[in-house]
Amino acid sequence: MAAVETPIACCAPLAAPLLDEQEAAATAELFKALADPARVLIVNALATKAGPVCACEFEPTLALSQPTISHHLKKLTDAGLLEREQRGKWAYFSLKRDAVEKLAAVADLKGVCC
Amino acid sequence: MAAVETPIACCAPLAAPLLDEQEAAATAELFKALADPARVLIVNALATKAGPVCACEFEPTLALSQPTISHHLKKLTDAGLLEREQRGKWAYFSLKRDAVEKLAAVADLKGVCC
Repeated sequence: MAAVETPIACCAPLAAPLLDEQEAAATAELFKALADPARVLIVNALATKAGPVCACEFEPTLALSQPTISHHLKKLTDAGLLEREQRGKWAYFSLKRDAVEKLAAVADLKGVCC
Repeated sequence: MAAVETPIACCAPLAAPLLDEQEAAATAELFKALADPARVLIVNALATKAGPVCACEFEPTLALSQPTISHHLKKLTDAGLLEREQRGKWAYFSLKRDAVEKLAAVADLKGVCC
């Protein structure tokens, strides 16, 4: 099976000299993964926790069904933003350090504009 | 006419202690504005230019029709990321400094996670 290429691996900063179409698409994919209030809340929750968080822990905060939460967690994982670890019945999630650094770099336009 | 409220005015960093639903929605709106390759390319082009850029200048680079380009410029302006200035027939666009700083702050999770 071919490895799934994640947008995070190739997306380029908005301020990079001149993005080509492929880089722009990858960067847009990364923003798309975060273009949903539930996914923003999940990333926010993970950013404020020290360790991996069980998929089961998001239900009370998000007021969404478990399948919907799993869908959002999958989108964030596919975008390369989360690390997923299976522990028995449940999966545990944490933010990926390199993804976090990439996201900050992608969104940083300070010093190049205005 | 009531002022249009822009997401940029109220969106919160992903790493903020605990976002409420309204803040998460505003933050997601900001990412949504950038969740499109053409809009990433527009912001990229503006980031690499010193002054305002005419809406007419994007057509060769983006290979899109002028109405489509205007649509993307409107989305970015509505999200609070661009400044729009009418000069005769054409509108000129530049990145908004406070929006750029907000975007960088919103996406910055370094130091709080992993």
